[in-house]
Amino acid sequence: MIRFDILSVFPDIFESYLTASIMGRARNAAIYEYHAYDLRDWTHDRHRTVDDAPFGGGQGMLMKPAPIFEAVEAIDKMAEGKPHTVFFSPCGRPFDQEVAQRLSELPRILFVCGRYEGMDERVYELADETLSLGDFVLTGGELPALCVMDAVVRLLPGALGDEMSAKDESFSKGLLEYAQYTRPASYAGREVPAVLLSGDHARIAAWRRENAVERTAQWRPDLLEGAQLTESERALAQKIMHADDCEEV
Amino acid sequence: MIRFDILSVFPDIFESYLTASIMGRARNAAIYEYHAYDLRDWTHDRHRTVDDAPFGGGQGMLMKPAPIFEAVEAIDKMAEGKPHTVFFSPCGRPFDQEVAQRLSELPRILFVCGRYEGMDERVYELADETLSLGDFVLTGGELPALCVMDAVVRLLPGALGDEMSAKDESFSKGLLEYAQYTRPASYAGREVPAVLLSGDHARIAAWRRENAVERTAQWRPDLLEGAQLTESERALAQKIMHADDCEEV
Repeated sequence: MIRFDILSVFPDIFESYLTASIMGRARNAAIYEYHAYDLRDWTHDRHRTVDDAPFGGGQGMLMKPAPIFEAVEAIDKMAEGKPHTVFFSPCGRPFDQEVAQRLSELPRILFVCGRYEGMDERVYELADETLSLGDFVLTGGELPALCVMDAVVRLLPGALGDEMSAKDESFSKGLLEYAQYTRPASYAGREVPAVLLSGDHARIAAWRRENAVERTAQWRPDLLEGAQLTESERALAQKIMHADDCEEV
Repeated sequence: MIRFDILSVFPDIFESYLTASIMGRARNAAIYEYHAYDLRDWTHDRHRTVDDAPFGGGQGMLMKPAPIFEAVEAIDKMAEGKPHTVFFSPCGRPFDQEVAQRLSELPRILFVCGRYEGMDERVYELADETLSLGDFVLTGGELPALCVMDAVVRLLPGALGDEMSAKDESFSKGLLEYAQYTRPASYAGREVPAVLLSGDHARIAAWRRENAVERTAQWRPDLLEGAQLTESERALAQKIMHADDCEEV
């Protein structure tokens, strides 16, 4: 059981996602629990103000330090064991499957979700870790928190209904996943590769491996550095990458 | 006005996010509209089946081609102008602010959200574009669709309440944003940098620029290649990057 705490000015937006599908089933199965807290509960003025103008001028509003410091201190005490506290910022470490794997082994994680133009810089001393979802700008940390929770929960034992291993998929072997097909074998003139219908497991495995190498070479050659390839696989990858170079000329 | 169409087996999970905050205000202001469709409406069996086992064996279930082909064709006709159709896959182009900017200029976008272990490969011919949110595995395309919608909408004129420009922020100049502070100037012993309280706009601008260069050099040196730096800024960046190298020894 992992416990997620979330600090946000919109604590109600999480429930519908965390009720549906795999996240809902995992919650019902007590694989995780979550508690969303309203940052405004740690303000002390009538308007429950969480933001203020930046020192030195500039557009937009920043999140004030006091409510965040107070809230994090209070949330820490709401359960056993200090949570691993995660902030989101474009300055953070890019979130990837390796981070998801590491976080999935923790008992308790607190996500502090920013809004407005950003947070007063002083609050980042509360972070055990600052993550970035990617090189794009969102209106807040709520979607990044949901993405991290989703990626983490599906790694937990029992979360995927059919007991399949989450490890047999993209990124786990340094290659993109091979192309997959389901019925019908022919759909409006579009055929499934014949080898997949052959029942010959050795040939199918070889086709899948080669297909994964090809796809990775074509779309994500940067991943190949970390992949373990045979000599002939590396030659295949080189050929595809070189063909792409020629196309671009 | 941009129109988002969403195809998903969980069409109800979008509403709460798209009602809150900036996304809610922008929708009320008719800056965008969205229509979420249930993929199961394009099945023809009693159990409304959208998935099936993979040819060639393997764990997990794949999304069948027929409901997706039929749904995309039907949704295309539900409004004027064929939508720009976006799929999500680890094989896709990484989503970033440049893609967000380009998408924000389109009148209509359809997001096809996968679930289960993936989709039958044949459906990708429907994609005008395949995007990846990052090198992590999620249970479906719903969160990526929300992230793209959020990043796109905040770039549209009028979406940010205070009429600030979305352009004056992280990534738009090839640098991370400088540190920002708001009141109080001193919080529990933590001080705001004095220059920001000086009222000297030239010094403040110089501090911010230097701070942005420093932060980028420290946390995201990969971004510096695309940034326009003066000679002394480049020297500063080099010094910070070299100091990091020494620490690691």
